[in-house]
Amino acid sequence: MRLKFPILALTLEIITIILFAVFVDYDDGKHGGHGAHNTTHHDEKTEQDPLTLYPMFQDVHVMIFIGFGFLMTFLKRYGFSSVGLNLLLAAFALQWGLIMQGLWHLEDGKIKVSIFKMINADFSTATVLISFGAVLGKTSPVQLLIMTILEITIFGINEHLVAEILGANDVGASMIIHAFGAYFGLAVARMLYRPALRNSHENDGSVYHSDLFAMIGTVFLWMFWPSFNSAIAESGTDQLMAVTNTYFSLAACVLSAYAVSSLVEHKGKLDMVHIQNATLAGGVAVGTCADMDIGPFGAMIIGFVAGIISTLGFKFLTPILASNLGIQDTCGVHNLHGMPGILGGIAGIVAVALGKKNGSAAMQGAALASSLGFALVGGTITGLIMKLPFWGQPPDQNCFDDSIYWECRGRKGEKLCCTIEFNPGWPVL
Amino acid sequence: MRLKFPILALTLEIITIILFAVFVDYDDGKHGGHGAHNTTHHDEKTEQDPLTLYPMFQDVHVMIFIGFGFLMTFLKRYGFSSVGLNLLLAAFALQWGLIMQGLWHLEDGKIKVSIFKMINADFSTATVLISFGAVLGKTSPVQLLIMTILEITIFGINEHLVAEILGANDVGASMIIHAFGAYFGLAVARMLYRPALRNSHENDGSVYHSDLFAMIGTVFLWMFWPSFNSAIAESGTDQLMAVTNTYFSLAACVLSAYAVSSLVEHKGKLDMVHIQNATLAGGVAVGTCADMDIGPFGAMIIGFVAGIISTLGFKFLTPILASNLGIQDTCGVHNLHGMPGILGGIAGIVAVALGKKNGSAAMQGAALASSLGFALVGGTITGLIMKLPFWGQPPDQNCFDDSIYWECRGRKGEKLCCTIEFNPGWPVL
Amino acid sequence: MRLKFPILALTLEIITIILFAVFVDYDDGKHGGHGAHNTTHHDEKTEQDPLTLYPMFQDVHVMIFIGFGFLMTFLKRYGFSSVGLNLLLAAFALQWGLIMQGLWHLEDGKIKVSIFKMINADFSTATVLISFGAVLGKTSPVQLLIMTILEITIFGINEHLVAEILGANDVGASMIIHAFGAYFGLAVARMLYRPALRNSHENDGSVYHSDLFAMIGTVFLWMFWPSFNSAIAESGTDQLMAVTNTYFSLAACVLSAYAVSSLVEHKGKLDMVHIQNATLAGGVAVGTCADMDIGPFGAMIIGFVAGIISTLGFKFLTPILASNLGIQDTCGVHNLHGMPGILGGIAGIVAVALGKKNGSAAMQGAALASSLGFALVGGTITGLIMKLPFWGQPPDQNCFDDSIYWECRGRKGEKLCCTIEFNPGWPVL
Repeated sequence: MRLKFPILALTLEIITIILFAVFVDYDDGKHGGHGAHNTTHHDEKTEQDPLTLYPMFQDVHVMIFIGFGFLMTFLKRYGFSSVGLNLLLAAFALQWGLIMQGLWHLEDGKIKVSIFKMINADFSTATVLISFGAVLGKTSPVQLLIMTILEITIFGINEHLVAEILGANDVGASMIIHAFGAYFGLAVARMLYRPALRNSHENDGSVYHSDLFAMIGTVFLWMFWPSFNSAIAESGTDQLMAVTNTYFSLAACVLSAYAVSSLVEHKGKLDMVHIQNATLAGGVAVGTCADMDIGPFGAMIIGFVAGIISTLGFKFLTPILASNLGIQDTCGVHNLHGMPGILGGIAGIVAVALGKKNGSAAMQGAALASSLGFALVGGTITGLIMKLPFWGQPPDQNCFDDSIYWECRGRKGEKLCCTIEFNPGWPVL
Repeated sequence: MRLKFPILALTLEIITIILFAVFVDYDDGKHGGHGAHNTTHHDEKTEQDPLTLYPMFQDVHVMIFIGFGFLMTFLKRYGFSSVGLNLLLAAFALQWGLIMQGLWHLEDGKIKVSIFKMINADFSTATVLISFGAVLGKTSPVQLLIMTILEITIFGINEHLVAEILGANDVGASMIIHAFGAYFGLAVARMLYRPALRNSHENDGSVYHSDLFAMIGTVFLWMFWPSFNSAIAESGTDQLMAVTNTYFSLAACVLSAYAVSSLVEHKGKLDMVHIQNATLAGGVAVGTCADMDIGPFGAMIIGFVAGIISTLGFKFLTPILASNLGIQDTCGVHNLHGMPGILGGIAGIVAVALGKKNGSAAMQGAALASSLGFALVGGTITGLIMKLPFWGQPPDQNCFDDSIYWECRGRKGEKLCCTIEFNPGWPVL
Repeated sequence: MRLKFPILALTLEIITIILFAVFVDYDDGKHGGHGAHNTTHHDEKTEQDPLTLYPMFQDVHVMIFIGFGFLMTFLKRYGFSSVGLNLLLAAFALQWGLIMQGLWHLEDGKIKVSIFKMINADFSTATVLISFGAVLGKTSPVQLLIMTILEITIFGINEHLVAEILGANDVGASMIIHAFGAYFGLAVARMLYRPALRNSHENDGSVYHSDLFAMIGTVFLWMFWPSFNSAIAESGTDQLMAVTNTYFSLAACVLSAYAVSSLVEHKGKLDMVHIQNATLAGGVAVGTCADMDIGPFGAMIIGFVAGIISTLGFKFLTPILASNLGIQDTCGVHNLHGMPGILGGIAGIVAVALGKKNGSAAMQGAALASSLGFALVGGTITGLIMKLPFWGQPPDQNCFDDSIYWECRGRKGEKLCCTIEFNPGWPVL
């Protein structure tokens, strides 16, 4: 950390400010289009009040900074990094994302910032935060900033390809955010495989209160997911449909996630890991179809299935990925974003084929393949770059431990282990 | 738990999906009315933008899932269940509530889901969560799902009677949600009376950080209560009045709750239980009158009185209910929702009698009586059903303890008591 | 506390209710102006829907009650007071602020409450909560209520002078809220100087989970700051500009705050104090300029500089203020609100001089001087009044300790020290 991190952070920010000075201007409400989605309706909105989408933007903002940030505080000694590095990465990613997405849609040589563009900038950060979940606890801030630059750049290319060239539907971004972010992160995690962590690390677990902090993230994500899936939908009935479908998909997903968690656990108990994560799979999986006329019950079926798949993934697949494939997925993003994202993409193919929305099932399939392809290839290359010793990867014994990156002071200013409850000298623990 | 819970949860969700397939459709913006309240204005809104109420809906959503969920995490060993079962029950209740309320207002044989209906669905869950507070820590997930089904069904009948047949005002639902939910829960608690818990259970208390988690719930409930009380008001000045009255009622309530807490406690100290709960009584009590022309100072008087009553209730009445009447009210819902709800109903009778809103004082009185009657009878029957041994009530010694329903793992995967700070082997505690 | 606090609280609330009965009425949408800012546009809004600003109001509300409340829970034994007294002071301050601001703008002898006025009432509480941060842990609830009355009254005068008489721009209130609140609080802290606290108090520090609670406050403040800075801007492009500028200023500020924190700390580590606070300085500093045409990159430069200044202030200036000037600034409000507020005022002078907004650079300068002058003189007088022994200042050894004001009960109802993790009898600590 000593100097590499501050120099990199300052340099990146200065470069970004220069790019903003050259390319970025306020939205003046006069331009012709927003990009791929919903050109017509949102312009009409813009003529009325440029802040129509602002409440939805703020919901998405809460998901990014509180939702993702606190969801990852479940680790007992890694809460500062979870919520703190989440803030750092997202703050940089939204600036970088605005440029990387905006360069594809210049108006008079400028990126004109509207609330719509700010929502998309926040969206682009979501991919990075999902990938962050896969490598949580095992990467340095410098490595993560490198990942952010590369992932957002690649995300911008894939998003342009899927939305503009293929013309595929993905209003809630099951494919271009969730599946992309998850498989990108898993490819990075594979590249950064640490044999020494095969037997679970003593810090790689939760304590009672860290699990409660994580539930703050879960519940905010759960509540505001309808905003995520509908924010860039065409206003009017499409947007209402996206809200409705997501609301019910998530509700159905909760029931199936709880039921399956109880089915697969010892004595029918519930597992906090499942509850924190699998209850959200319905939001991911209904993303592509959210603004399609699949019926509320159709959305519920998607959510119901997603809750089952996601819970089973945490229970049975994650250990196999770690032990057999060398993919150490700290947060289980494969179960929350990966498989439900693919499920969402497939549901979108089926729904378009059934005429629930204008579009081409083939293009939907191509969009899913493109997202997975860019993710796996991009993540592999990014992982290889992140592995360069120069970036200062934390040693195995300091994984999942805030004290390597954070000052942890005690009563008299003396240095303390971060999670005092787990000091080895204490009884029972 | 072993199999009963997952089978019940899966079965309920599958039945619900089938009912949705038959009865539920998207709102197409073409229908003629929303039900009892505010037919005219909201339709005009709907023609403009079906998402006009969406920000208010999200505020209510936060109250239901974060507000109620975290408010109940004050128990030191029952945080997972508080926020986790809150999510489970609410996710099921909103689906069930949409049907139970919607069946009374079918359009072309369908329940057409609008944001307005989603708000009402969230409202119906509030009754269940209030009752949940009365029996918190002493009931199994299976028992609670049974309670949810029965309570929402009875709520739907009473709500229809009060709003449609009696034509009573209750915009913020002091009567049909708060008083109903509280007395329903108290009746259930009476039926589930446990003599062994007469001397307070060692787990029935808070620790420092659990009280702070609970304050997250308190503060979100407090902030968004103006949305709760105004969400289904007629748009325009009525809705603004509902926001204004609730905002000031809550502010006045805080001052009186703090003052009385200090007055009745040892050495003038404040009691966290009062602060977490009685500060909210102003929102409950102003509910019925919220959209009436009672003047901001009128709202403040209601809130001021509610804060006093509620705090005194926690201090003096709750112990009496437990020891003399066999009503063990874990969260003190009688003080937060019961008495303030009745106060709200009475304030509504007076306000209507004084001509602050069109209506009949007699019908307001009938609405209050109906809500209390349905609650007490319905709660008693529901409690008797919940008492059937088949549902697996937790034994006395496992009350208020997450470890009976949740996997609680330690560092190396070993099982640990949930609240490590309170391990009996530790010093001082 | 015994009787002074409840009597004062009840008396203040009763007086307030009487003042409301005389002076306060609902907004009927017919009046002619809102006060200093944006007369024209908001009236047009009001004619459409009086709740147009409601989502922005709720964002500001969250900043006041969750943001400020939890930001101050970083102290290990003072979390109840931080979030609890924050609620008490803010609930009173918003009522008092509505009157103190409204008396300058009576319409037909009445203060007519609109969402706009509720936002301004919430704003006035922010000054008190900032000053509260400077004296956190060292003042009784009675002292703080006295401070609230005096500070809001003085704030109302300065705000009227700056906005109406001088006609200065300060849409995001860098000067009239942040600089004012900070220097007012610092002047109070100087008057209440405690020599015995020169060597840091054993309770004046954080533990792991208290720092995580504080991050809830930080992140909500960070996310909703664009609402704070744009809520009272003219609707349309000005408001969008205020949102955009604040969004990017905050993002740039995060990068510089993290970088400088790492630069100045041991081994390049990050310090939670900096992350909790300095990441927000960009929101403060861009306040005055938020609705000016400074370009997104201009906003980012302001945020970037604010993040640097604020972090350096925490590291180097706060200890000097405490040891050399007798200013014991518990939360470091000088670094978060004071210096960034002045920076914002200066940026406003420059921006107006450069023609980025209509106005007079001289009047902007006068506004900054007025805000600092009223703050320092007002804070000094207020501090002297608060020092009167009658109000019951806590003794040195009970500073930063909840147990002096809060019942702290243990398992069997026995009294316990509030932060059990820090009982001196325990190992390591």
